[in-house]
Amino acid sequence: MNYHILTLFPDMVRDGLNTSIIGRAIEKGILSVEAVNIRDYTKEKHGHVDDAPYGGGAGMVMQAAPVCDAYEALCARLGGRRPRVLYMTPQGQVFNQSIARELSKEEELVFLCGHYEGIDERALEMIVTDYLSIGDYVLTGGELPAMVMIDCISRLVPGVLNNDLSAEIESFHDNLLEYPQYTRPEIYEGRRVPEILLSGHHKNIDLWRRQQSIERTLKRRPDLLAGARLTDKERAYLQNLVSGEENG
Amino acid sequence: MNYHILTLFPDMVRDGLNTSIIGRAIEKGILSVEAVNIRDYTKEKHGHVDDAPYGGGAGMVMQAAPVCDAYEALCARLGGRRPRVLYMTPQGQVFNQSIARELSKEEELVFLCGHYEGIDERALEMIVTDYLSIGDYVLTGGELPAMVMIDCISRLVPGVLNNDLSAEIESFHDNLLEYPQYTRPEIYEGRRVPEILLSGHHKNIDLWRRQQSIERTLKRRPDLLAGARLTDKERAYLQNLVSGEENG
Repeated sequence: MNYHILTLFPDMVRDGLNTSIIGRAIEKGILSVEAVNIRDYTKEKHGHVDDAPYGGGAGMVMQAAPVCDAYEALCARLGGRRPRVLYMTPQGQVFNQSIARELSKEEELVFLCGHYEGIDERALEMIVTDYLSIGDYVLTGGELPAMVMIDCISRLVPGVLNNDLSAEIESFHDNLLEYPQYTRPEIYEGRRVPEILLSGHHKNIDLWRRQQSIERTLKRRPDLLAGARLTDKERAYLQNLVSGEENG
Repeated sequence: MNYHILTLFPDMVRDGLNTSIIGRAIEKGILSVEAVNIRDYTKEKHGHVDDAPYGGGAGMVMQAAPVCDAYEALCARLGGRRPRVLYMTPQGQVFNQSIARELSKEEELVFLCGHYEGIDERALEMIVTDYLSIGDYVLTGGELPAMVMIDCISRLVPGVLNNDLSAEIESFHDNLLEYPQYTRPEIYEGRRVPEILLSGHHKNIDLWRRQQSIERTLKRRPDLLAGARLTDKERAYLQNLVSGEENG
């Protein structure tokens, strides 16, 4: 997977992704991350890439030409291929795990990062294929959202995680939240690890963890339960918890 | 506002926040961002901070002691104050603009960044005050979510944005999406700026922009309309659009 990030702040993107799992996958050659400086594509003196909005208003708007030229130059380098262009905006479809899964199948992805009061609408119409939002909050620019999406998508690219199981057992498996985790020591500041985890009885441990996941999801994110994949027994357990809450 | 980030990857956090608006606010002394390396607080040989999970399973779990010790050392440096501790997890309450507004009133905020298969549950019970999620997707660690939250919260700290208006007119004002923006030139690749924006008639421009916001919100994020603050005239305009869609 090759990521190309069109940005006014290339350093921000380069530095933020070079650690940990993503950094290792870059070293292994499974991923590549290229930051393209939009400023390199301005034809104006003084390197301007923005100007006042037509119709008035506060702030500056990024001009269409340097954005489109940066993308066209990239396409030329890719031998004429025109990869999907993701624009990060609160206006977009809300990003989630299944969008990440779909995007992880692409060979090249372009992230266009807006700044200031946004990008000239004509540039967006001409090159953007996907409008995506990481959540309902306002950020300074598209760089952090791009990094968030790259982190999430990369974990789904084969070979990036050492242990394929790791992705499986993590959050959102079967639409349930993760069970609590414990490690050494057995007693920390007077708090004991739950006895069952020390029992060595794997069937019981699995059952307990699954019940913990169901309980937590009910307590913290009940909206997820509608899509949860539960066995008949688990559904009965959940029903029991719900009636307990209603009565208690 | 002083941010303290408890992390195993201090470089990732330091580099990603030093640009743009946040970087300037740090220079001006309005914000400070401190990365605390959890690894500095381990008492084990070889600097280990993680161990296998009790009860078995893939991956490693971050141990309670270094996490709690890092927090207690920070409280001691703050003269015994115990700031709120935000833990970034898909299990948390979904972060949004109003949570950001509330958090922006604190003087100190601690972000605890998990990695691997999470943190020993006892540490979370002992120090975490807020469980927050930036969205329904799985990431490698808490660092990127912490940076996203810091970016969002910081924009609401007085003095960080040059122009207070700027925050106001941005996305989510009155729960509507932003109108399209245009800047020079008037014609780009055969595409003209909408005539009205060149008219100089500010009242008409405001009306047009407002209508564009309503249209876009209806088209792209109709879920936001329930909470939108509209005048009677605007509500009638929206009704008209809706019936048009239904008939067309």
